[in-house]
Amino acid sequence: MYCPIYRKDRKKMDYQELARLAKEDSHVLATTSHQKRNQALAQIAQSLEEKSQEIFHANALDLEESDGLPQPIVSRLKFDRSKLDACLAGIHDLIAMEDPLFRVLFQRQLDESLILKKITCPIGVIGVIFESRPDALVQIAALCLKSGNSAILKGGKEATHTNRMLFDIIHEAGVTAQLPPGFLTLVEGREGIDRLLAYDQFIDLIIPRGSNEFVQYIMANSKIPVMGHADGICHLYVDQKADLSQALDIIVDAKTQYPAACNAVETLLIHEDHYQTLLEKLKETAISITVAEGPEDYREHLDTILTVKSVTSLEEAVTHINTYGSHHTDGILSTDSQAIDQFMDAVDSAGVYANCSTRFADGYRYGFGAEVGISTGKLHARGPVGLDGLITYKYQLRGQGQRVADYANGQQSFDFKDIPF
Amino acid sequence: MYCPIYRKDRKKMDYQELARLAKEDSHVLATTSHQKRNQALAQIAQSLEEKSQEIFHANALDLEESDGLPQPIVSRLKFDRSKLDACLAGIHDLIAMEDPLFRVLFQRQLDESLILKKITCPIGVIGVIFESRPDALVQIAALCLKSGNSAILKGGKEATHTNRMLFDIIHEAGVTAQLPPGFLTLVEGREGIDRLLAYDQFIDLIIPRGSNEFVQYIMANSKIPVMGHADGICHLYVDQKADLSQALDIIVDAKTQYPAACNAVETLLIHEDHYQTLLEKLKETAISITVAEGPEDYREHLDTILTVKSVTSLEEAVTHINTYGSHHTDGILSTDSQAIDQFMDAVDSAGVYANCSTRFADGYRYGFGAEVGISTGKLHARGPVGLDGLITYKYQLRGQGQRVADYANGQQSFDFKDIPF
Repeated sequence: MYCPIYRKDRKKMDYQELARLAKEDSHVLATTSHQKRNQALAQIAQSLEEKSQEIFHANALDLEESDGLPQPIVSRLKFDRSKLDACLAGIHDLIAMEDPLFRVLFQRQLDESLILKKITCPIGVIGVIFESRPDALVQIAALCLKSGNSAILKGGKEATHTNRMLFDIIHEAGVTAQLPPGFLTLVEGREGIDRLLAYDQFIDLIIPRGSNEFVQYIMANSKIPVMGHADGICHLYVDQKADLSQALDIIVDAKTQYPAACNAVETLLIHEDHYQTLLEKLKETAISITVAEGPEDYREHLDTILTVKSVTSLEEAVTHINTYGSHHTDGILSTDSQAIDQFMDAVDSAGVYANCSTRFADGYRYGFGAEVGISTGKLHARGPVGLDGLITYKYQLRGQGQRVADYANGQQSFDFKDIPF
Repeated sequence: MYCPIYRKDRKKMDYQELARLAKEDSHVLATTSHQKRNQALAQIAQSLEEKSQEIFHANALDLEESDGLPQPIVSRLKFDRSKLDACLAGIHDLIAMEDPLFRVLFQRQLDESLILKKITCPIGVIGVIFESRPDALVQIAALCLKSGNSAILKGGKEATHTNRMLFDIIHEAGVTAQLPPGFLTLVEGREGIDRLLAYDQFIDLIIPRGSNEFVQYIMANSKIPVMGHADGICHLYVDQKADLSQALDIIVDAKTQYPAACNAVETLLIHEDHYQTLLEKLKETAISITVAEGPEDYREHLDTILTVKSVTSLEEAVTHINTYGSHHTDGILSTDSQAIDQFMDAVDSAGVYANCSTRFADGYRYGFGAEVGISTGKLHARGPVGLDGLITYKYQLRGQGQRVADYANGQQSFDFKDIPF
């Protein structure tokens, strides 16, 4: 595990001490001005640019050791000029965004000279476990810094050299810009994760961007709240009134444009009137069809395989989706606006779509800028999670000596008035 | 365990089937109009009024069996005319409130004819475990209904007769008003809780209003998100610049007005300049003083006992609170506005107060109407939780055949524009 203070040492630290330091420094970060957080982001972008050759060299070492890994993982592992440019553009986008902190959400007089404000603030310490893309490290570190949170990051093993180099550069730049050293911590190895899961007094939120099994493991083994998604079992329903040609285009896009994505469609529900016609048309595409025989077919294929099922009504489709779906993103393909409204109200998912591809479920495509991940939970943030998902709020109450006893015994009474701000 | 459908039978149902029914009917509730939910609330209020004698009779049975229980529990257990009136007033307040559902939070064009809306919706199925007050059953059932959530309730054992009667009346009134029968479920016994903790696929949120130990137990034994508070270790800090007479008034109120409340002050931090003076003054009050010797003294007393500690600076006070507090409600008593601002930014608690009693931390006193509880977690709702804490949102995306492939290959590009609503 990396030590956030003596980073060049790669000294093993006590895990508890490391989590405690991240927490302690999160309180410093929470009071850091927007200007200072932005200056640190600018310093980080500058250092990444200046040390780009060192990063590419480290990445070459990871690529050399990647023999035998599947091609998609190797592509994600690669960190070249264009990936660096995308990271730098992302940091500059973040700098340009408004401060998510210290925003007044409401202001209310409870009584004369007793003023309540609800104000945004960071969550505290966020643990993020991400996949083989080293650019995720840069993106997540920058998002957490902009939102005033300490971040504890755990990247993919395949990217060890690149992640260490990126971490060293970002950490040094942040400390140079006078951030407290615990603002960013890099954790390596599965052991690190297991230890951290026990420190619910120091870590406020875990965002796991891994396999379904892994997310379930974390939820079952920690008191720390988890934000993320497990399965991505997305549906499209072809309604009784549908433009079949448009429907086919959307189905092909939602299944084949990037089959390994969590927002790719996995189960197609077809109104019985169109079942045979559409099945014939699908046979002319690159999609492999599995005709549903039971719940074992309602799964995440992560490939150009599509489970297909005939339904007799919109209600049956909705019930199927609410029962077997993963509450990620589900769409209706229909020309009937009443059916669309009914579907959108009744389907219990983070994204409910009409007449477009499920693949639009993404922070960038929603115009959020960078995203931390997609949440299928219903608490806090749901769907693609941007900066807003990394903040919480506190209540500030300012008085002039008010006691509750005076209100309880009726000598004083509340005089609620919302105050414009 | 109560069966939500054949309620007169008190038939034991399979726990999993019961949770599944609550979930299934939550999807019906989510599409129920505001008018219908309000009509059900009105029906419930009317039935409670009509059957008031039956409720008082059931409550008399609980009181008869309460021999040996401490007086505060007996007071809370009592359900008389004034408690019923308060419940009825609460229901009518809720009816008058705006619909928390179907509210548009934002609306954005992603591209021409590709419109994204963020819309409020219920969380789904909420499990609430509450204390000996039977009025809590009425209040929580009404809050969950107003917000379109199915509720699974578990009350205190002492209130069994009253809770059963209240449940029967509310359930029958709701079904009469055409709510689906799974809108409300009553669970009895510790076994019921343990079984339900396993059904994370059916229950979306647990709100435990019990002891610290109990809340910790639930968090450690379920994947279901938990909203609530464990300890309530609240602090007051007497600053170097302080009006000592006003400070003393506030301390006495925060400690003695209701010592068993979670928002009562437990630890008093005094700037060293005022330590001796204030200690002398405190000896003239009804408060028992414990001079802090170590972390074992920084605990929840739930009595008129106050731990007192001398600190050398505001920074030391802030660090103490962030380290040993429970992030519930903490205040500064000071005449120095700069010190107040610094304290409020740096203290990491749901409520940060200046020059008023910590006992103001309460949904009613914040003007929220009814409250479900107080949360010291940082995800979703923080501090006193009203109706807003029982809702989430979904993204609705309406298109006209858009495919992601066209945007990925550059044939189309996004044209983000926020649309007023």
